[in-house]
Amino acid sequence: MIHLEDTITAMATPNGVGAISIIRISGNKAIDVADSIFKGKMHITDANTHTVHYGKVVDAQNNFIDDVLLTIFKAPNSYTGEDVIEVSCHGNPLIGQKIIDLLLEKDVRIAEPGEFTKRAFLNGKLDLAQAEAIIDLIRSKTEASFLSARSMLEGRFSKKANEIKEILTGLLMRLEAELDFSEDFSEAEGLSKEKFSEGIEKAGDAVKKLISTYDGGRVLKEGVKVIILGRPNAGKSSLLNILLKEERAIVTPVPGTTRDTIEEVVSIKGIPVRLMDTAGLRDTEDVVESIGVDRARKRAAEAGLIIFVADCSQRDFSEDLRMLNSINDRSVNKPGKKIIVVANKTDLVKNGNLEEIGKIFSGYPLVFVSALKEEGIPALEEKIHEEATGYYSGFFEADQGELVTSERHRDALVRALEGMDRLKSTAEQGMPAEFIAADLRWSLNRLGEITGEVTTEDILERIFSEFCIGK
Amino acid sequence: MIHLEDTITAMATPNGVGAISIIRISGNKAIDVADSIFKGKMHITDANTHTVHYGKVVDAQNNFIDDVLLTIFKAPNSYTGEDVIEVSCHGNPLIGQKIIDLLLEKDVRIAEPGEFTKRAFLNGKLDLAQAEAIIDLIRSKTEASFLSARSMLEGRFSKKANEIKEILTGLLMRLEAELDFSEDFSEAEGLSKEKFSEGIEKAGDAVKKLISTYDGGRVLKEGVKVIILGRPNAGKSSLLNILLKEERAIVTPVPGTTRDTIEEVVSIKGIPVRLMDTAGLRDTEDVVESIGVDRARKRAAEAGLIIFVADCSQRDFSEDLRMLNSINDRSVNKPGKKIIVVANKTDLVKNGNLEEIGKIFSGYPLVFVSALKEEGIPALEEKIHEEATGYYSGFFEADQGELVTSERHRDALVRALEGMDRLKSTAEQGMPAEFIAADLRWSLNRLGEITGEVTTEDILERIFSEFCIGK
Repeated sequence: MIHLEDTITAMATPNGVGAISIIRISGNKAIDVADSIFKGKMHITDANTHTVHYGKVVDAQNNFIDDVLLTIFKAPNSYTGEDVIEVSCHGNPLIGQKIIDLLLEKDVRIAEPGEFTKRAFLNGKLDLAQAEAIIDLIRSKTEASFLSARSMLEGRFSKKANEIKEILTGLLMRLEAELDFSEDFSEAEGLSKEKFSEGIEKAGDAVKKLISTYDGGRVLKEGVKVIILGRPNAGKSSLLNILLKEERAIVTPVPGTTRDTIEEVVSIKGIPVRLMDTAGLRDTEDVVESIGVDRARKRAAEAGLIIFVADCSQRDFSEDLRMLNSINDRSVNKPGKKIIVVANKTDLVKNGNLEEIGKIFSGYPLVFVSALKEEGIPALEEKIHEEATGYYSGFFEADQGELVTSERHRDALVRALEGMDRLKSTAEQGMPAEFIAADLRWSLNRLGEITGEVTTEDILERIFSEFCIGK
Repeated sequence: MIHLEDTITAMATPNGVGAISIIRISGNKAIDVADSIFKGKMHITDANTHTVHYGKVVDAQNNFIDDVLLTIFKAPNSYTGEDVIEVSCHGNPLIGQKIIDLLLEKDVRIAEPGEFTKRAFLNGKLDLAQAEAIIDLIRSKTEASFLSARSMLEGRFSKKANEIKEILTGLLMRLEAELDFSEDFSEAEGLSKEKFSEGIEKAGDAVKKLISTYDGGRVLKEGVKVIILGRPNAGKSSLLNILLKEERAIVTPVPGTTRDTIEEVVSIKGIPVRLMDTAGLRDTEDVVESIGVDRARKRAAEAGLIIFVADCSQRDFSEDLRMLNSINDRSVNKPGKKIIVVANKTDLVKNGNLEEIGKIFSGYPLVFVSALKEEGIPALEEKIHEEATGYYSGFFEADQGELVTSERHRDALVRALEGMDRLKSTAEQGMPAEFIAADLRWSLNRLGEITGEVTTEDILERIFSEFCIGK
């Protein structure tokens, strides 16, 4: 349980050495407590909101700790909606800790992870989906995931969820009004069965449309999985290294989905791409051979995008085509699986022959590359970007505010839809209208969980524990 | 060369993910440029200094980048003395970079390392020693180094340097006044040779006193070097691991002074302690045996404090005493070298026998420890703290404002002293008073380098390039 009457504090800036660190204090006593450790030109208890004050932080023995700038935000015009103080001190963790220690001697405790944002939610500064968007925003590593989080924080997803809720709420109100006169839905007047069904259908379609964006939304947030396959010595690891080596904003290693794989997320033209099996590839060239075609097929099935590397300088491409065929087997692949063929080692081949190779791989998007000379890489990245964004066709053009990126939101939508389906059969079975109303309320509550109108301490706990302390 | 007319920007918070990141902008155009990317309730060009404004950062196409808080500091009441804007955005490096990129499209460039502080110095907000104290303050890893940097930032060291300069300036002024009447110092009236010598002596003593604090100051800043020695299987590596393992604020590996050593700085009760040779110790127990007594002696000579580990459970301590004797050889040690004897493996010994062991090592500070059971460690840490602070006797009680912690400051003091010595022999040789005045001016200029009254672009370059960008 959260104690809203507590005054809380935490470092708000990343841990480390820098010019400035910020300590945040929020709660009823924030201003008084900050004033008690601060010596400036005036008492900050007399200061106006949104003003900044230079002074010194001193301890109980009047020892000088640091020069600081102290900013005052008076409730409700603050991040949390409570009185908030931000202390800007020299960017040394030791100093930040000293100031926090001073505060803890007063009537202040360390904030739980996400507690500032939780209070902002509880004080109505933002809804739950927007609060979740803040985690996504802070963690986003690519332009695409940033834009999607940005849009959710702006409330565009919440607005969509609320529109669906309004339809259902309208139906529920009319249903309940009718129920006052008649207990039998079939006898309800003013709200015909047809109109009612129409409304449910409309809401259901909107929910389904949202759910259908989830795979795309997840790709936006987490990145499309890419696997590099090909015959031994085709140059898979060289290519992988070039893709990883390229200086990009952020490259993070993440634990792979299977025990022996490592995935690295790279940003290719703003799209997160999870390069899989990189560890194995770097150790050995003959991945496909050593793991067998079956395993290659299985891995290919997990990927959203396959980069198939072929050696241009060879005479016989029949083995490559056999492998490509096997990977491209629709029975193991989700529809929409994309394959890019990379014809590598162009440095060893005359231009005339490249035309031949182009014919051999016709039917596949083809890029000519020399990994050795690092030629053709921008074209490959362009192609990866194109195919990755096309992985779930059209989602990228969709209004990103209507993308579902969170598993929690998708689950809530799926359960809301289940309620509507149940409702329909309840109605068909001629059950009392009260039962229909109960199903409707159930679906409404599931939608309400998205924005946090309906919530439990459990849900809040799960969401906010994912935050960093200080947010 | 620094271009003061430029407007500069940089991230001011540590790199990484957090609740908040701060971007700093400083210069003539800071307010106009910030206003051009900001949409709030009002134009910040109309805002008062030291006020905070909520709004959105938008790009040239009016795309929403982030919600921010924008703080205004109008010249001269800012860190740099120029107009300064601080933009507080969500703590994601991607967002910070986006905002900086927007600024760079305008008439703003990325700040050089330390350029904000350099401008503060050039605009007279602090002197050069204080600017250097800011690096030390940000980097300080222990209470002791923090306090020493804190004190230097408060200007206590600058004050001391200025006091010495005042004495010399007084002498120089009188000397120059006399020179107007007489070209021969020996004929100078009003300023007797004795008075003059007295003044030089007084200033020289003060300089010497400061120089003498340098070794202590360096210990405060960098940590006293500690080496763990002892016979094979005495438990050196266990003890080392315990000292390293203890949860302390900051443990940093630093490159050792010799090729094959690693030093780790740990904070023991606020005192930085550099544990040397840790890599070697962890790999092998029989360091002393394998490297030979000569090498052990050499290493011991480099250390400020030796922890000598003896195995309590053995019968014969003659080999330990022989080693101790060898290490304690005054001919290879600086005066004041400290040795702590750790009688380890108390778990294997009856209490009665410990008394015997105490007699064997009488004359050395002795701590009984069981590394196995992790007993006696607080007492050992207490002893290390005591001996480390006593390494240069008395310096810890000294006013920390009078401690020299910077090599640059010590060099300036040493050269100032050289000038005074030269001056004395110049005077003794009966050289013209102008020569004496020249020496005096030379010494004054060296002292002026400390606070930056006298400085060159080279000196500034060297000092501020050590800063992080954004400070």
